[in-house]
Amino acid sequence: MNSVNELELLKSFMPFLPENDQVLTGPGDDCAVLKWNSEFDLIVTVDQLIEDIHFLPETPGEAAGAKLVKRNLSDIAAMGGTPLWGVLTLGASEKSQEYLLAFMKGAGAECAKYNVALCGGDISSLPQKGLVTTFTLAGRVPAGRAVLRTGASPGETLYVTGPVGNSFESGHHLNFTPRLDLAEFMLKEATAMLDISDGLLLDAKRLAERSGVDLLITPETVPLRQGAVLPDALSSGEDYELLFCGKGGLPFPAIGKVLPGTGKVTVAGFEEITSYGYEH
Amino acid sequence: MNSVNELELLKSFMPFLPENDQVLTGPGDDCAVLKWNSEFDLIVTVDQLIEDIHFLPETPGEAAGAKLVKRNLSDIAAMGGTPLWGVLTLGASEKSQEYLLAFMKGAGAECAKYNVALCGGDISSLPQKGLVTTFTLAGRVPAGRAVLRTGASPGETLYVTGPVGNSFESGHHLNFTPRLDLAEFMLKEATAMLDISDGLLLDAKRLAERSGVDLLITPETVPLRQGAVLPDALSSGEDYELLFCGKGGLPFPAIGKVLPGTGKVTVAGFEEITSYGYEH
Repeated sequence: MNSVNELELLKSFMPFLPENDQVLTGPGDDCAVLKWNSEFDLIVTVDQLIEDIHFLPETPGEAAGAKLVKRNLSDIAAMGGTPLWGVLTLGASEKSQEYLLAFMKGAGAECAKYNVALCGGDISSLPQKGLVTTFTLAGRVPAGRAVLRTGASPGETLYVTGPVGNSFESGHHLNFTPRLDLAEFMLKEATAMLDISDGLLLDAKRLAERSGVDLLITPETVPLRQGAVLPDALSSGEDYELLFCGKGGLPFPAIGKVLPGTGKVTVAGFEEITSYGYEH
Repeated sequence: MNSVNELELLKSFMPFLPENDQVLTGPGDDCAVLKWNSEFDLIVTVDQLIEDIHFLPETPGEAAGAKLVKRNLSDIAAMGGTPLWGVLTLGASEKSQEYLLAFMKGAGAECAKYNVALCGGDISSLPQKGLVTTFTLAGRVPAGRAVLRTGASPGETLYVTGPVGNSFESGHHLNFTPRLDLAEFMLKEATAMLDISDGLLLDAKRLAERSGVDLLITPETVPLRQGAVLPDALSSGEDYELLFCGKGGLPFPAIGKVLPGTGKVTVAGFEEITSYGYEH
């Protein structure tokens, strides 16, 4: 599915997404935010991990299982949250029991590392050879303090928490560590945030649109992963670093400015952005 | 995947399912039960709905989308719960946008009917033609009062809330209404419960094993759906009625007795049960 179709499709689903008084923030952020108790809000995310889309048949099962969990952990990190529990689904055909066990071992180890309970799931066969998996992950944030995509204001600085680009070739898309370590800092300092899963430019555009601002990115200030090159590194995806806005002088690479606007992203020195990023 | 393999596989996953202090009841029931607040526990379930496994390519999109949500609503009903919110995933290839819209319309309508917020999701392409969907649904039960599979005691009566059998041929597997209307009654009267998704006998065996009792079923007292015949109706699956235990004289069909034991299910008049049910 190319990016235009996915966005169109998502938009066209909106009339069919009922809400109720449990929902504090619905679709459109890294997690939904839901009522929990006086101290915490509940945050929830779900991601798929599909063989031949998000990993290859030759990817070790443990690495694939870990990636499924870590993609969702990264969404929790992107809200300033702390993960709590998750449920997992496996649809599989012609996968060996050894592979599925390794997959679950990888997913379980990643959950254990962050004290996430893997408390339920569903297993089914598929009509065709392959492996389709999902993980739904819930976490918590202090009540009313989830860092959304909507809070950026003109005059602020745009930051990234680490290098981008060359994720597939370098193995980073399997080896990355979700930035849960930054939750306390982000709850204090970030005005708007998301994680870079689909490429810095596409994710920057999402933040700009949801905040109702423009972003001016200075490409020479963007930290690059070893082997990454501009401009590809700005749109190659699966970086799993956090992109956030805040006051000047914060201890992360400053890669641009927040300007008054309506959702445009400009890269200084590039006349026109033709490809915003990578979507599955 | 046949039933033996799925059960073996599930058991072999258990070492990889970490828990934490959020989990009140983990895998092994219709929903996981999690800490929420002083008034309510949170309950969570997830199910897959896969083309050519759980519905056919010619099944209308709205009916398939409704079925995805209703299967999960039935799991909430099986705990005596009230549904609150859910997240949905779609993995699709070579499905028309019209079909996917109809699917979402069906899922959304079913959510709206029960005041369930559809608060997030994920869309991806698949490497092969098909449609793989999942729904994760959360609900609530009064704190400490979820009806588990574990509470049956010898001397109690086994009940079913409605007819079984012939679900596929009759279209019941698409048209059923999850038994959420019975939550108040079940919270008061049911000692152990699950919903019949994989056939009365297989689900009875799960209840018997988890409760550590035997069950003796009198087949002539089991209500049958039009066109259903014994013994097939006891194992054909997708009934989505509730199977529960309680004191004698409750206003539902009494189909058997709870006996001391270790998880055996006996059908009076059938020497030996060779097939317990249907698993996807």
